[in-house]
Amino acid sequence: MAIITLTTDFGLKDHFVGSLKGSIYRELPDAKIVDISHNIGPFNIQECAYILKNSYKNFPEGTVHIIGVDSEPTPETKHIAVLMDGHYFICANNGLIGLLESETAPSKVVEIAIRNPDLGAFPSMDVFVQAACHIARGGTLEVVGKPFTELHEVRDLAPSVTDNGNKIIGSVIYIDNYGNVVTNIHKNFFEAYRKGRNFEIQARTKVLTKIHQKYSDIVNFNLEKSQRRAPGELMAIYNSAEHIEIAIYKSNPRAGGSASSLLGLDYLDAITINFK
Amino acid sequence: MAIITLTTDFGLKDHFVGSLKGSIYRELPDAKIVDISHNIGPFNIQECAYILKNSYKNFPEGTVHIIGVDSEPTPETKHIAVLMDGHYFICANNGLIGLLESETAPSKVVEIAIRNPDLGAFPSMDVFVQAACHIARGGTLEVVGKPFTELHEVRDLAPSVTDNGNKIIGSVIYIDNYGNVVTNIHKNFFEAYRKGRNFEIQARTKVLTKIHQKYSDIVNFNLEKSQRRAPGELMAIYNSAEHIEIAIYKSNPRAGGSASSLLGLDYLDAITINFK
Amino acid sequence: MAIITLTTDFGLKDHFVGSLKGSIYRELPDAKIVDISHNIGPFNIQECAYILKNSYKNFPEGTVHIIGVDSEPTPETKHIAVLMDGHYFICANNGLIGLLESETAPSKVVEIAIRNPDLGAFPSMDVFVQAACHIARGGTLEVVGKPFTELHEVRDLAPSVTDNGNKIIGSVIYIDNYGNVVTNIHKNFFEAYRKGRNFEIQARTKVLTKIHQKYSDIVNFNLEKSQRRAPGELMAIYNSAEHIEIAIYKSNPRAGGSASSLLGLDYLDAITINFK
Repeated sequence: MAIITLTTDFGLKDHFVGSLKGSIYRELPDAKIVDISHNIGPFNIQECAYILKNSYKNFPEGTVHIIGVDSEPTPETKHIAVLMDGHYFICANNGLIGLLESETAPSKVVEIAIRNPDLGAFPSMDVFVQAACHIARGGTLEVVGKPFTELHEVRDLAPSVTDNGNKIIGSVIYIDNYGNVVTNIHKNFFEAYRKGRNFEIQARTKVLTKIHQKYSDIVNFNLEKSQRRAPGELMAIYNSAEHIEIAIYKSNPRAGGSASSLLGLDYLDAITINFK
Repeated sequence: MAIITLTTDFGLKDHFVGSLKGSIYRELPDAKIVDISHNIGPFNIQECAYILKNSYKNFPEGTVHIIGVDSEPTPETKHIAVLMDGHYFICANNGLIGLLESETAPSKVVEIAIRNPDLGAFPSMDVFVQAACHIARGGTLEVVGKPFTELHEVRDLAPSVTDNGNKIIGSVIYIDNYGNVVTNIHKNFFEAYRKGRNFEIQARTKVLTKIHQKYSDIVNFNLEKSQRRAPGELMAIYNSAEHIEIAIYKSNPRAGGSASSLLGLDYLDAITINFK
Repeated sequence: MAIITLTTDFGLKDHFVGSLKGSIYRELPDAKIVDISHNIGPFNIQECAYILKNSYKNFPEGTVHIIGVDSEPTPETKHIAVLMDGHYFICANNGLIGLLESETAPSKVVEIAIRNPDLGAFPSMDVFVQAACHIARGGTLEVVGKPFTELHEVRDLAPSVTDNGNKIIGSVIYIDNYGNVVTNIHKNFFEAYRKGRNFEIQARTKVLTKIHQKYSDIVNFNLEKSQRRAPGELMAIYNSAEHIEIAIYKSNPRAGGSASSLLGLDYLDAITINFK
């Protein structure tokens, strides 16, 4: 029995998540349901893609991912089921799949042909649940719908390279639970343009010249405790998604501030890297 | 093995939810526990009823619902177990059951006779867990306690009809995760008084004359994209619970505002409908 | 198959929790994973200890508790696995275990010898998952690592006794979901110094002379409803963790205030008890 994961913007107070889980269990009593996140920003498929891209691969192949973000079907955003990278994704054709792809393209896409039994305002419920349970039971995409080739493209926020390859201009794409600032500059992209040169990362008024591998790298454990850098130090790091992240060592957004609050950096703000 | 759901006002930070789940697994290692919501407003049984009413039916019949909202037992709010609509509810006799009933009345109610082993401040724990596990294992209500007939009534917020049937005065009973404003006016109630007439929904300074079936109904997909109504449009809709809801198409409460914030409508505020 | 619980400061929006669960299921398809809390204050091991101490015992013996708070391994905070009180704890050696102990000391501690396969910034993932799954499958600590004796000590906030045993000075260690104020004064500690005497609990400008066993104890159910104390009454209580707690009867922090907001009491503030 495949795992079914849920990634939605439903929040954790309303009845939507409970209803969705109840419907799955009613259809498939032995279902194994795992929450990825229900706190995606409303209708924010970019944020949804960032979170899903960095978690789906940890699940076993064959996992079915239901995505309840901007999922109301319209003539232009039909419900689709996608096989990509060994995983199944059930969502509306709103551009999300394109944002998830990186190396791999979808190996199969169908338009879900299950009719929504009523006109209600919560379509994920019935159609997504039926499609997901069919696949989780080992069914094929062919039964869920007919082949579909018109995947919507949404422009992803890509970093740009200017000044004859001497400057990368990236953007903030995510602020995490610690208030750390995730950029859209991936390690591979950075290294491809860096070519071994020195660099300066400009984050508002601060300049960083090193990218660490782990947060505690900025601490010199050979020094006495009193001599060491304290929590609160600003740093750049490759995060677990291999994006360049501007972080505060052991930051606490609820006390004393975070990289986001201290630098005044928010979603979509620019981060510049100059090569020397 | 029946599912056990949890609906509480415990929040998701404290140890209460973890403790509750641990106790259930200790009693019933194969339990299947599903969270409905732990973010009910403290002691708000109206809110609890709205969320539970709109989710419990999605679960299979025989599901056991533990409700940890205003659940401390007192001489006047005893612990009860209720069979209604094929589902089991374990809660305090605080009026919740009356708020949940609609078409169906409880088919069986017992006062839970399991003694709380200590005087601690967290009674749901032991008594509710033991009652729920007994039922989930297939046990009967008769073993849990003795028949009980004194269910408390709490006055539900019902819409009123005035002006010789020409006006409905309803109230806001819930603000959802998108900031949409849910009224206590159910589709059936509305249609019974409407009798085919035109109408105006008055939500603060705004007037709406149509109730949509789905959010994207306000978009005319025959128009070019640039000509269409944009996200941000105010609308009335029958939501998934068939209540009249004042919504913003693709609203984001954290950016740009929601129906609740833009109209200044909050819990218990009035919404008026005039028939023409 | 043992239960694996998760207690982290990852929050519920980011991909971290989903990734962690996916990794566990990939390693151990039949795993039973239970969330204790993901909303621990960032790097706050005192808060983590309070929540874990009050929930872990409710789980069956043999449960494996993964703790993702301040868990990055450094030369001084190695990854450890601990058997204590019949439960397994997997965490960094950051002082947490000392804060969890009370009557019982760890019966076995090992330094986890599983190598972190990459340099990524999310170490809980691979090392903790592998250690937890090994133990959950019934494996021994000896296979996970070698014996370890250098557990870090972190000074716990202990109440102090002054004025020849006539005064206890305690601190606020937790504000719960209802805004109630939990002190570090345990019932046993209080009674040991009280020796049957009367007392005054000084919480800012308020004085309380009784500690209740349950919240509704302050209501006299022999009086008519109109004569009774209403929700909103300030009280002291032994909470479910047997700590002295300053509470508001049926408080709602989001409407009308809580003990914390009304008294202006926050984390680490002092609470004094004078014996008479």
